Amino acid sequence: MGVVVLKFGGTSVGNVERIKNTANRILDEKKMGNQVVVVVSAMGKTTDQLVTLAKELSSYPNKREMDMLLSTGEQVTISLLSMALAEKGHSAISFTGWQAGILTESVHSNARIIDIDQKRIINQLAEGNIVIVAGFQGVSTDGEITTLGRGGSDTTAVALAAALEAEKCVIYTDVTGVYTSDPRFIPQARKLEAISYDEMLELSNLGAGVLHSRAVEFAKNYQIPLEVCSSLERVAGTVIEEEVTVEKSLVVRGVAFEGDITRITIFGLKNSFQNLSSVFTTLANNNINVDIIIQNQTDGEDAYLSFSIKNDDLHDTSKILEDYQETLGFDHFEYEAGLAKVSIIGSGMISNPGVAAKMFSTLAEQNIMIKMVSTSEIKVSTVIEEQQMIKAVESLHTAFGLDLVAMK
Amino acid sequence: MGVVVLKFGGTSVGNVERIKNTANRILDEKKMGNQVVVVVSAMGKTTDQLVTLAKELSSYPNKREMDMLLSTGEQVTISLLSMALAEKGHSAISFTGWQAGILTESVHSNARIIDIDQKRIINQLAEGNIVIVAGFQGVSTDGEITTLGRGGSDTTAVALAAALEAEKCVIYTDVTGVYTSDPRFIPQARKLEAISYDEMLELSNLGAGVLHSRAVEFAKNYQIPLEVCSSLERVAGTVIEEEVTVEKSLVVRGVAFEGDITRITIFGLKNSFQNLSSVFTTLANNNINVDIIIQNQTDGEDAYLSFSIKNDDLHDTSKILEDYQETLGFDHFEYEAGLAKVSIIGSGMISNPGVAAKMFSTLAEQNIMIKMVSTSEIKVSTVIEEQQMIKAVESLHTAFGLDLVAMK
Repeated sequence: MGVVVLKFGGTSVGNVERIKNTANRILDEKKMGNQVVVVVSAMGKTTDQLVTLAKELSSYPNKREMDMLLSTGEQVTISLLSMALAEKGHSAISFTGWQAGILTESVHSNARIIDIDQKRIINQLAEGNIVIVAGFQGVSTDGEITTLGRGGSDTTAVALAAALEAEKCVIYTDVTGVYTSDPRFIPQARKLEAISYDEMLELSNLGAGVLHSRAVEFAKNYQIPLEVCSSLERVAGTVIEEEVTVEKSLVVRGVAFEGDITRITIFGLKNSFQNLSSVFTTLANNNINVDIIIQNQTDGEDAYLSFSIKNDDLHDTSKILEDYQETLGFDHFEYEAGLAKVSIIGSGMISNPGVAAKMFSTLAEQNIMIKMVSTSEIKVSTVIEEQQMIKAVESLHTAFGLDLVAMK
Repeated sequence: MGVVVLKFGGTSVGNVERIKNTANRILDEKKMGNQVVVVVSAMGKTTDQLVTLAKELSSYPNKREMDMLLSTGEQVTISLLSMALAEKGHSAISFTGWQAGILTESVHSNARIIDIDQKRIINQLAEGNIVIVAGFQGVSTDGEITTLGRGGSDTTAVALAAALEAEKCVIYTDVTGVYTSDPRFIPQARKLEAISYDEMLELSNLGAGVLHSRAVEFAKNYQIPLEVCSSLERVAGTVIEEEVTVEKSLVVRGVAFEGDITRITIFGLKNSFQNLSSVFTTLANNNINVDIIIQNQTDGEDAYLSFSIKNDDLHDTSKILEDYQETLGFDHFEYEAGLAKVSIIGSGMISNPGVAAKMFSTLAEQNIMIKMVSTSEIKVSTVIEEQQMIKAVESLHTAFGLDLVAMK
């Protein structure tokens, strides 16, 4: 009898009715003869409400106490879901992070799982119980309650799947799977049957939002087959695994996009070697997240340096650059807001050298000017005008053969 | 530097403003040079809201899962109170029941504390921190979250005071102390400066509601001086200790009362010795709480048996007596609803044999008929018509010299 780990997000347990539906979903899986471990998040907006309470008491709440506070959200859900399963006639038992043996670093608000002591879970599974584990939380070796940061419940699920040598780990969410692009903006986007860990990592880092990148990394390291599917509709989702055997013909598997980008360009940067790291260290210390970086230096000339940031960080970035202009030793800087990042992702790119060229020519045909480019082995990102973003995504989606084709 | 344990109930932490006020109260105590341990309940109506959620999912929620659910209430409060203290510039640390080392029996919803491992608390006190402990909850030796039942936070506070050899334990509540009678109904009731453990136990069992009897028992066993006072008004409360040195002249220290009582009388009970226990075993098995019992048997006659129950239990009691009439072997039964219990309490009664007689004559003067009587060493309880209850309490309050006298 194999173990399966099922993870349900906050929407799936947002109220009493949804908790009952989720219980039915779990029982269907149990009836298939599997040992079932369930990981759940806090109900709907609970976490936000708790954060609001804390902010009313303190502008900068202590992180240890925030973990103490926020971890109650999942604890409420696990007990209610356990009751719902019992009411439907199946014995279940809930465990907090510390009870489930989820050991983390001694860090608050963003701890990493370092080990799982799975004895209690295994004993309960052996007794035929469905085991429900609070996501997002763990315990440090010194007995402190910790939380895993954004997307932490996904990580809990994947880590448990690894520790329990589960056959699969299913992430139930409010979308039906991983799409070739965001279907809210790109109507011709279609759901992928499968995608590789690396491709999913790139998509997660590009803000696709379906899965947290740490969970995908964990799944890749332990080779856990992941499945993303809808908690509301009963349709097949997307499988994430090492070797994607289906849809091999697709060189590009997705087009990701993100607006609200600003490009900063620094001119006349002296002694660029030392100063390059100084610029980014200073920005990082001020919590400015820098994305694409382009540097250009030819012999005998001063370097110019461009990088992209979120529009929201423009004010702080300008302030920092002005304050440090003398220290960093540059001539002046300029910025251009209202930009967007459009990326294509696909493992097949490695063996297909013409992919980037095809991307550029596709955009050129649409009169879209590329302002920055960044490439990895399985991704090409471009920065363009934000007003051309959707047109760019649609044309790339079509050019790389991703458009939804009506089934016959 | 002595340790003091302060306990704040749900009203004292009912919202953000009250949590801030409670933080101020705690800091005042800290400034007096004490090491401070604080025990708190769940915020205001939180527990009720969680119970409602559970009832929507299950008519009889599993007790283990209820403990898992309800224990989140106090966990929210401890973290918020810790943040409030930090915001006011004093370092504080919060502990759940399991973190505070509160070990209980492996029983859910009504566990007893069996030991306290106070190491973590002592270490934090030594570092100068205010330690905030979640009341009402503990952990069993098999790592299960347990709760202590009604009034459990009081018990947590007293048990911690015992384990930490505290100088005192102060219970902050929404009344200003222990009164000679319920001031909501008896305007001439006055606050007692002091009361003995035994008297407080009788008052608690009679539903005075200020302190849970288990907490008082604990305090008596470990000789912890308890103080009950208001979390809102800054006035002296009531001290509960072994020997009450003040107000020695008061033979009776309080008049307690309770309405909604029904008297059941069973006639023609055969073989009363065996059957007496059968009747009460049967009722107990059906969760009927029987209070005063009076049995009368003279030679050659069948016994008659009277006992008092709550009005709410009348329907179930009647049903049970009808079902078991043949088995129990009695002739018939009658009931009288609309009764009340009025009791006088005072350790001085032991050495003052005329107290019960004075009670009966006082009630007789008011034309109040006594239907049942029950006595202990420090208490006399009578059952009378409910419509005469307040008149009875007022006349006893005056007769035993308890009335509030205007201060000059």
